[in-house]
Amino acid sequence: METADLLKVLYIVAIVAEAMTAALAAGRREMDWVGVCLLGSVTALGGGSVRDVLLGRHPLSWVQHPEYLLITCGAALATIMVARYMRHLRYVFLFLDAVGLVVFTVIGCNVAMSLDMPVVVVIAAGMITGCVGGVLRDVLCADVPLLFRAELYGTVSIVTGGLYMAGKALDLPHDPLTIGVMAFGLGMRMLALRFGWRMPKFVYTETIH
Amino acid sequence: METADLLKVLYIVAIVAEAMTAALAAGRREMDWVGVCLLGSVTALGGGSVRDVLLGRHPLSWVQHPEYLLITCGAALATIMVARYMRHLRYVFLFLDAVGLVVFTVIGCNVAMSLDMPVVVVIAAGMITGCVGGVLRDVLCADVPLLFRAELYGTVSIVTGGLYMAGKALDLPHDPLTIGVMAFGLGMRMLALRFGWRMPKFVYTETIH
Amino acid sequence: METADLLKVLYIVAIVAEAMTAALAAGRREMDWVGVCLLGSVTALGGGSVRDVLLGRHPLSWVQHPEYLLITCGAALATIMVARYMRHLRYVFLFLDAVGLVVFTVIGCNVAMSLDMPVVVVIAAGMITGCVGGVLRDVLCADVPLLFRAELYGTVSIVTGGLYMAGKALDLPHDPLTIGVMAFGLGMRMLALRFGWRMPKFVYTETIH
Repeated sequence: METADLLKVLYIVAIVAEAMTAALAAGRREMDWVGVCLLGSVTALGGGSVRDVLLGRHPLSWVQHPEYLLITCGAALATIMVARYMRHLRYVFLFLDAVGLVVFTVIGCNVAMSLDMPVVVVIAAGMITGCVGGVLRDVLCADVPLLFRAELYGTVSIVTGGLYMAGKALDLPHDPLTIGVMAFGLGMRMLALRFGWRMPKFVYTETIH
Repeated sequence: METADLLKVLYIVAIVAEAMTAALAAGRREMDWVGVCLLGSVTALGGGSVRDVLLGRHPLSWVQHPEYLLITCGAALATIMVARYMRHLRYVFLFLDAVGLVVFTVIGCNVAMSLDMPVVVVIAAGMITGCVGGVLRDVLCADVPLLFRAELYGTVSIVTGGLYMAGKALDLPHDPLTIGVMAFGLGMRMLALRFGWRMPKFVYTETIH
Repeated sequence: METADLLKVLYIVAIVAEAMTAALAAGRREMDWVGVCLLGSVTALGGGSVRDVLLGRHPLSWVQHPEYLLITCGAALATIMVARYMRHLRYVFLFLDAVGLVVFTVIGCNVAMSLDMPVVVVIAAGMITGCVGGVLRDVLCADVPLLFRAELYGTVSIVTGGLYMAGKALDLPHDPLTIGVMAFGLGMRMLALRFGWRMPKFVYTETIH
């Protein structure tokens, strides 16, 4: 299997995993079935959509491939059926969520590179693709986004994108580079979860406004 | 009057109704007059704007017709004056809000069809047009969007869009089809309000993150 | 120095000031360093980005000038270092924030004028550029946006944009007009802060939904 095909398969796995974890978040808010579908789809497809809107790239992926919308709605609805067993799958989902983070990041970098964007924008595009879906989920649940506090979530995306661009600058061969940086990012996220690694927090208690 | 003209008239009625109900939401948050105008305009025009941004369709309707902005600001300010009487108009507003929902949905479907979008995207565009304004209103009020829980709100939009597309596929004549699906959607929403119909809720109490 | 250069310098000052005040908001929410960078960048660059997305203007400013992203991240991180001294700089920051408001407003008007937009859209574009960054900051902090309640914040932006367009309609010379309306808007905001001027509030206690 070529890396491009692997990325495509992992992309489907990732949007399914994101839609399912978002469906659980919807369930914690007692949303109805339509809300579950919507929150799942926005979470799974929102990062790539925001990236494409900001970069002025049309059509968006789910406009070109409407089956993605059906997949995310189906995954969100399926979650309602299997939710009672998901407690036992906690680690599977944290793992799939981490896979989604690095896959989305690399895909976002590839999209921005195909548009000849400067390197800072490429890394930003990777991070937007990887992280914004979860931000939209949290905003729609009226929460402060987890991204701003979670174990290295945003950091993993930036590091993955940065290493990928460094490898490209060194002209490393595409396929091993792609696999390598995704494995590195995935390992970093799983270790951060295992050992509770976090970025230092900034705590400020004065009021300026 | 042709259906296209009817839709245009109903569109104006709908943005006025949406701006006025959003102004009441602003009043419950004790926003100032500028906030009332902004929340009213974002609620009334936000759904169509998000649809056009996602589909890459420019100029947006309020950019091409800036008078829409003046209408929504005017409606929101007028609400401040007449708010004391609106308690008695509760059912009028729930009715106009439902009119807005189905009118926005059909207009959104028409826009996506004019861009030759696939049917899933057409129905999604109808729903985005019908529902996203209210989601933006709730997010700006720091609430969990009503859409995710309200009486068949999103469902009415999906069913209206789905029937509209089914009628198009069966080559039903345009004008009766348009009137018919809007009447059906409107009736469905009003019955849901009257009898408290809701989609089943998904309640999940475990924590996965 | 020409006005165009002055605007450019003031723009940099403004994005630094916005990123720093957003970093303090992040600190009050105990966000981590990555969250501080993100919230600072979204606040500083979000208004212009939303304006460009709504007007269909690409590339966005930070895509064309990725150094802006580095500036806002740097300013946000620097805030962590100097936060303990910022209490004494409260008034400096309120002043710089007001500078940002009028500079962003004038720049937003200029962008919309360069696209030959009608006058209502030009004033709206100025206000979006001036105010939406702060709205995004507040939404990401799960707060009701300050804009909807703060001392003349949105009003200052509308008045500044309106005077600017009036001056253009009267064919006043560009440079003195630009300086003049910015000075007027800045003075209006500072006086509003000093004397607690606010727009009247709309208070509504009934429930309509």
